[in-house]
Amino acid sequence: MGFERVAIIGLGLLGGSIGLAVKEFLPGAITTGYDADPAARLRAAERGLVSRVCDDPAETVRNAQLVILCVPVGAMGAAAREIAPHLPSGVVISDVGSSKESVAKALAEALPGHAVIPAHPVAGTERSGPDAGFASLFQQRWCIITPPEGADPEKVAALSAFWEALGARVEVMDAAHHDLVLAVTSHLPHLIAYTIVGTASDLEGVTESEVIKYSAGGFRDFTRIAASDPTMWRDVFLSNKDAVLEMLQRFTEDLTALQRAIRVGDGEQLFDHFTRTRAIRRSIIELGQDDARPDFGRSDHQG
Amino acid sequence: MGFERVAIIGLGLLGGSIGLAVKEFLPGAITTGYDADPAARLRAAERGLVSRVCDDPAETVRNAQLVILCVPVGAMGAAAREIAPHLPSGVVISDVGSSKESVAKALAEALPGHAVIPAHPVAGTERSGPDAGFASLFQQRWCIITPPEGADPEKVAALSAFWEALGARVEVMDAAHHDLVLAVTSHLPHLIAYTIVGTASDLEGVTESEVIKYSAGGFRDFTRIAASDPTMWRDVFLSNKDAVLEMLQRFTEDLTALQRAIRVGDGEQLFDHFTRTRAIRRSIIELGQDDARPDFGRSDHQG
Repeated sequence: MGFERVAIIGLGLLGGSIGLAVKEFLPGAITTGYDADPAARLRAAERGLVSRVCDDPAETVRNAQLVILCVPVGAMGAAAREIAPHLPSGVVISDVGSSKESVAKALAEALPGHAVIPAHPVAGTERSGPDAGFASLFQQRWCIITPPEGADPEKVAALSAFWEALGARVEVMDAAHHDLVLAVTSHLPHLIAYTIVGTASDLEGVTESEVIKYSAGGFRDFTRIAASDPTMWRDVFLSNKDAVLEMLQRFTEDLTALQRAIRVGDGEQLFDHFTRTRAIRRSIIELGQDDARPDFGRSDHQG
Repeated sequence: MGFERVAIIGLGLLGGSIGLAVKEFLPGAITTGYDADPAARLRAAERGLVSRVCDDPAETVRNAQLVILCVPVGAMGAAAREIAPHLPSGVVISDVGSSKESVAKALAEALPGHAVIPAHPVAGTERSGPDAGFASLFQQRWCIITPPEGADPEKVAALSAFWEALGARVEVMDAAHHDLVLAVTSHLPHLIAYTIVGTASDLEGVTESEVIKYSAGGFRDFTRIAASDPTMWRDVFLSNKDAVLEMLQRFTEDLTALQRAIRVGDGEQLFDHFTRTRAIRRSIIELGQDDARPDFGRSDHQG
């Protein structure tokens, strides 16, 4: 079972990238797409993100075998309710949301009797909107599928094959574990980055233009993820609240320990900690999840 | 007054890059270099980081017009005491340390009667050692010069011209202000990155291999700077303790506010904060201090 007709609801970075990736890697498949923003629909049509941009969600999903909801996680329930009456039988409904327990619950409630198989491609950039997508976004990235209990194995396999065709590596886990893992690898880093960029822009002794000028000392690395889509991230923090607050608690304890080491001048503790974190970076590069060139391959003259 | 004979003490990322940049952009100048580690001296000679690698610091500085100390800030005093008896008259002594008040004090004590003009090129990568340097490291980066009271304006101008020749843009400010600015643009980001990478590698519910696998969700952006040289960074935090602790206090307050917004479900506060931080990123890119391509120009297939 392969998907030959794929409907994409939401044509931003993720939705647009899926459309472009299907065009490139599954050229036999037809994609339909919808975005609540008319300007985004126009731009999606201009860029050819999907085979056909539709003017309403009903028309988008009418003949689909796979529907992928690519809207902020707080909007998943509403988007699902909107398409519910128009879904053909046998369709698989999935999504790309960054938190999975709350999304699984919202979709199950909105789509009783339908095959809902949530998923999360762990890929993205700080850009958003219909101009942000590109076909290779999922290459070598992980896509985590979180099938609810009792999900049809054949449909799970079909969704896995779909993501593998777009270049992703697939992992299956339960939604609660996903939310814990992503709280530490993605949600906490974003929260910290948003915080420090806010702190730096709001000091009396140092001007914002100084912060910007000297950002190459480390600060700029945080600004990229602190430029991510505000609506998407508001929803992520609210929907994965417990895991995020738990990770934040751990982080704060560790930060307090390093703060104390600085205050009392314990150079040995600092040195040991900094040596340990260096090894993690090495592993990430070995596994192909980042680029080993200095500055991630920023050109020498620009970055 | 230009410097035709430049001595570099410490042949790691910064020292090596200065040597290579002089070779490329000031081809008339002669460089001598020394590193306390014999293996680094050997490698420096193989890579041609300086015109001549010397086996002791005395010989390195004997005929120099400019000496640049490129050792961790905690080692500046000792390095200065070692060269003090061998310095020719009229020489300018500078450095590249990331904190300036403590270095200025250490150098002034070790080198009474000499022209000490501290400096800090705000440039670097997470790599260290004699293999890490490259000639274009300083292109379009800022170099902050912090002349002590009563410094000879002609010598300050000569040092500025030197850094501009290597491609840097020069700013002059006092050491205390430098330390405050860098605490927020560089030292705090490094401390936060070191902390979160440590937190993530030390959880019961999530394995280290999961953290590495799903690092593309944001975490990997922190690992680059958390892979920086442990000795250098231990020294930076100990030498700029007050400013770092002050900034850390601000950061913690701001983080607590966002934590509370998540706990009480205040989406509006989160959205407003995340919208504000997005604008800072835009300014950094406009000023050429980072690369606007998605993922800083990481190749699509690797990063």
